[in-house]
Amino acid sequence: MSERIGFIGLGHMGSAMAGSLLKAGYSMIAYNRTAAKIEPLLAQGASQASQPAEVVTPGGIVITMVAHDRALETIVAADGFLEKLGQNGVHLSMSTVSPATARAMSELHAKHGSTYVAAPVFGRPDAAALQKLVVCVAGASAAKERVQPILRALGQTVFDFGEEAAMANVVKVCGNFMIAAAMEAMAEAMTLVEKNQIDRSAFIDMLSQTIFAAPIYQNYGKMIAEKRYMPAGFELVLGLKDINLVLDTAEQSKVPMPFASLLHDRFMTNVAKGRGDIDWSGIAQGISEDAGL
Amino acid sequence: MSERIGFIGLGHMGSAMAGSLLKAGYSMIAYNRTAAKIEPLLAQGASQASQPAEVVTPGGIVITMVAHDRALETIVAADGFLEKLGQNGVHLSMSTVSPATARAMSELHAKHGSTYVAAPVFGRPDAAALQKLVVCVAGASAAKERVQPILRALGQTVFDFGEEAAMANVVKVCGNFMIAAAMEAMAEAMTLVEKNQIDRSAFIDMLSQTIFAAPIYQNYGKMIAEKRYMPAGFELVLGLKDINLVLDTAEQSKVPMPFASLLHDRFMTNVAKGRGDIDWSGIAQGISEDAGL
Amino acid sequence: MSERIGFIGLGHMGSAMAGSLLKAGYSMIAYNRTAAKIEPLLAQGASQASQPAEVVTPGGIVITMVAHDRALETIVAADGFLEKLGQNGVHLSMSTVSPATARAMSELHAKHGSTYVAAPVFGRPDAAALQKLVVCVAGASAAKERVQPILRALGQTVFDFGEEAAMANVVKVCGNFMIAAAMEAMAEAMTLVEKNQIDRSAFIDMLSQTIFAAPIYQNYGKMIAEKRYMPAGFELVLGLKDINLVLDTAEQSKVPMPFASLLHDRFMTNVAKGRGDIDWSGIAQGISEDAGL
Amino acid sequence: MSERIGFIGLGHMGSAMAGSLLKAGYSMIAYNRTAAKIEPLLAQGASQASQPAEVVTPGGIVITMVAHDRALETIVAADGFLEKLGQNGVHLSMSTVSPATARAMSELHAKHGSTYVAAPVFGRPDAAALQKLVVCVAGASAAKERVQPILRALGQTVFDFGEEAAMANVVKVCGNFMIAAAMEAMAEAMTLVEKNQIDRSAFIDMLSQTIFAAPIYQNYGKMIAEKRYMPAGFELVLGLKDINLVLDTAEQSKVPMPFASLLHDRFMTNVAKGRGDIDWSGIAQGISEDAGL
Repeated sequence: MSERIGFIGLGHMGSAMAGSLLKAGYSMIAYNRTAAKIEPLLAQGASQASQPAEVVTPGGIVITMVAHDRALETIVAADGFLEKLGQNGVHLSMSTVSPATARAMSELHAKHGSTYVAAPVFGRPDAAALQKLVVCVAGASAAKERVQPILRALGQTVFDFGEEAAMANVVKVCGNFMIAAAMEAMAEAMTLVEKNQIDRSAFIDMLSQTIFAAPIYQNYGKMIAEKRYMPAGFELVLGLKDINLVLDTAEQSKVPMPFASLLHDRFMTNVAKGRGDIDWSGIAQGISEDAGL
Repeated sequence: MSERIGFIGLGHMGSAMAGSLLKAGYSMIAYNRTAAKIEPLLAQGASQASQPAEVVTPGGIVITMVAHDRALETIVAADGFLEKLGQNGVHLSMSTVSPATARAMSELHAKHGSTYVAAPVFGRPDAAALQKLVVCVAGASAAKERVQPILRALGQTVFDFGEEAAMANVVKVCGNFMIAAAMEAMAEAMTLVEKNQIDRSAFIDMLSQTIFAAPIYQNYGKMIAEKRYMPAGFELVLGLKDINLVLDTAEQSKVPMPFASLLHDRFMTNVAKGRGDIDWSGIAQGISEDAGL
Repeated sequence: MSERIGFIGLGHMGSAMAGSLLKAGYSMIAYNRTAAKIEPLLAQGASQASQPAEVVTPGGIVITMVAHDRALETIVAADGFLEKLGQNGVHLSMSTVSPATARAMSELHAKHGSTYVAAPVFGRPDAAALQKLVVCVAGASAAKERVQPILRALGQTVFDFGEEAAMANVVKVCGNFMIAAAMEAMAEAMTLVEKNQIDRSAFIDMLSQTIFAAPIYQNYGKMIAEKRYMPAGFELVLGLKDINLVLDTAEQSKVPMPFASLLHDRFMTNVAKGRGDIDWSGIAQGISEDAGL
Repeated sequence: MSERIGFIGLGHMGSAMAGSLLKAGYSMIAYNRTAAKIEPLLAQGASQASQPAEVVTPGGIVITMVAHDRALETIVAADGFLEKLGQNGVHLSMSTVSPATARAMSELHAKHGSTYVAAPVFGRPDAAALQKLVVCVAGASAAKERVQPILRALGQTVFDFGEEAAMANVVKVCGNFMIAAAMEAMAEAMTLVEKNQIDRSAFIDMLSQTIFAAPIYQNYGKMIAEKRYMPAGFELVLGLKDINLVLDTAEQSKVPMPFASLLHDRFMTNVAKGRGDIDWSGIAQGISEDAGL
């Protein structure tokens, strides 16, 4: 664990992940656009970079965890980033971005002799802090092997989806779509039970202890039952972004996805009504309103 | 456990449930429209009735497990059924029927001095045989207490939704809606991963071991991944019936449920194409077709 | 024109239609549940009945124009109605009811020797007053021939859909569905142009003078452009009823109709929000709200 | 009419439009990527350019009529195009492109001293040949005045949507969405009448002579009634492009458009099934299939 990792992107998730890596013994140099967010990490032993390329060690490993495709592109396009990463460098990209961006990134890194590995994760910041993320990885085998200890320090379970980086992103956007679909289904059902004077929590507790006994139903089910959408663990406006990622992927793959289309309109309605900053489970609020509640 | 139970409705589910009750030591007289289906139960010690009312012991307990509201209404309207059940009798209705029917049934039984208890279940025949059903019960307290040992013999977990029988049915139709929604979401996602050359099973295995680690995703996920919709555990045409139950309930409660509407059209398309007799997870076949697979 | 017509149902449409028939020289005896509504007709020469059966002349013609299937069934079930209509009587049913009800009505009348002719109309009360309704008729030929002068007094154009009464109702519910679909499409488009600072009226005027130069687009387009949904020409809650009629017909015919499903949820949302009494074009208000306007 | 017009894009629509302008007395130099398509125009007096910039007269007028945003961008980026158009030149862009592209184009032309006028049209090639297009124009007033005679030679009715070019494109994409919505509604309704043994043509003829007496319903109604989707007047795959244009515009404007989302999935299903080259009214074929016809 002597290798120094470069880390870019210290939002809620990035900070929790970087913290877990420091705890696991990695040394780290970190960069964030908003410098203030980096301070807690410095206390844990990280050093601070003032520009993206500064976190890069030639032939080393850089992890990025940013909010959207554009942010990732900006980092990679930063002065000296790709040049410095150079031969044998590995860019471990853990953000939720589109498969199309992953494809473009893979080619771009290959041109500079480095390897782009996609490793998007499922889990919220608390899971990241507990090293309990679910990691989906794809990319060239040698690079994947090299980053394996890092991934294991973030989540016990690492799922490999082959040599093509973009495939991990296809899996990730599909998984996020399934989470959003589960939230919509729960919220529609809870609206119906509520209008029939049945307790929302009693309803979802029964299901999430039995046939739907899984974290998604337990955690989001509780939030939706209690109509508690603040503070946001994952902002609704980012949920809209994720639904657009799955719809864009479906467009290129010629797959009609009517549930995803409906979810798009659900998220958009909530964003248009000014609720982009609540938790994405807050789409349930729009569902209650539509029923006159 | 000396009480003799009357049991009506010996389809896949009913037979498995009746078998579990016999195993638990109950004595039983059973009726089924198609008499042949009753034979395996006779071997287990049940006796056979030739008419619905014949299973009724005055003041006793009758369990019904039939395919739809109409079948339930026909039984209750049969000559002598309500009259014989009479004072103190309990009709334990375990079928998936509409809350509206449950409401009407409650009133009708009350007029004859008996009690209608709704106790619809989640689980397929194999769960019924293993006494592992999830039971949702609602109705008058005294009657619920009386049937409690019976319910425990069918499922370890019994969830109580109050004094009004119809409420258990609201919960049940909402749960079935959520199962159908999960299947649609899985099938859309798997279609997208398949078109990107990712293995359907690898995708759903990852999710159903982690954030979606629940029976619904594990069992239906496997069927959908393998495109194995025969033999039917629960027929697609009955799935359409269940979606209509939730839509009817939503209509009366003034709740728009766009996912349920979409599921309705999905089920209807598959029924219109002549696939009403495959498993209801077979809606996934229509999703594949729409993507040109 | 010597024949005296019985007329039942004097809402906005019924009154305008009855007035046109009086103007055309028919003598009339009319019944309405709320007697007060009949007064303007009395001034025009109609006489008043105090019960449904009282408007019936044996072997004569009775016209009904009521709000829903239930109202029609109640009239026909009224004491003496069918018995008095008897041999050679014609029930000219002009309400928008379900094909299933029309089918049941046809059989019921046939048993009493009379004929049920379905003749639902397109057009609002002002068109009825101007004898400009569009009439769709179906039923036994002899009866259709007999009522032809009556239909011509209500609308210049009468379209014949064959011998089976229910077919006129299939056509009518499909037509109403198409109107609702046009309104939804206009409202979505106008919401988008409004958010781009384009005048809603300028937009719809252009289209409704050119490629969409038809009454539906001109009339409803103007209302939606001006967001003027009161007073109601046709109440939103009746629009929901009509969408349910088309969905019920589709269910029996095994036809998935996703636009109709979506319209159902749109109408239901507006009803749930307490807007059942505005004009049905007022579904546009829900569309504006969803866009944050 | 002495001014020589440059014309780029000679597909079905472009050729018909160019022909109308030649008939109206304009002189013309034309360019098309596939040179063969230009020949009929040469016979009518046009001269031929071998590159986009060659059609440009400094300070003159260039009309473009191409299939999508990318094609338009390629032309404008061609060597010398903008430089030659220069001061006082007018680019009259009649293609259906996105408002976002129109916005970018307006800025780009302004930088080179020329003016970008958007004038997308409604109507099919036969309307273009008869000078009966419906033209929606937007852009700087002086330039609009200058091109007015040209627009009048293509359509008797020209509708002005202000100074900002992109607004004409917003109107155009909304109009195309409304056409697609009308086709879907007609097709769903006709599927239902067909399954009830009613003649599709009789049904739509009635409506398109009365409350829907407009070209869209008459022309597309006939095609859909007769299930005649070849040859394509406007290809289904271009219909998908247009739905995506309206969805992209809605995304930027934060407007949920559920009908448009549903239409997207309808078009995508038909494209995925290999029917991208039939007429866009052919979405009706998917609707028939879903009903098992």
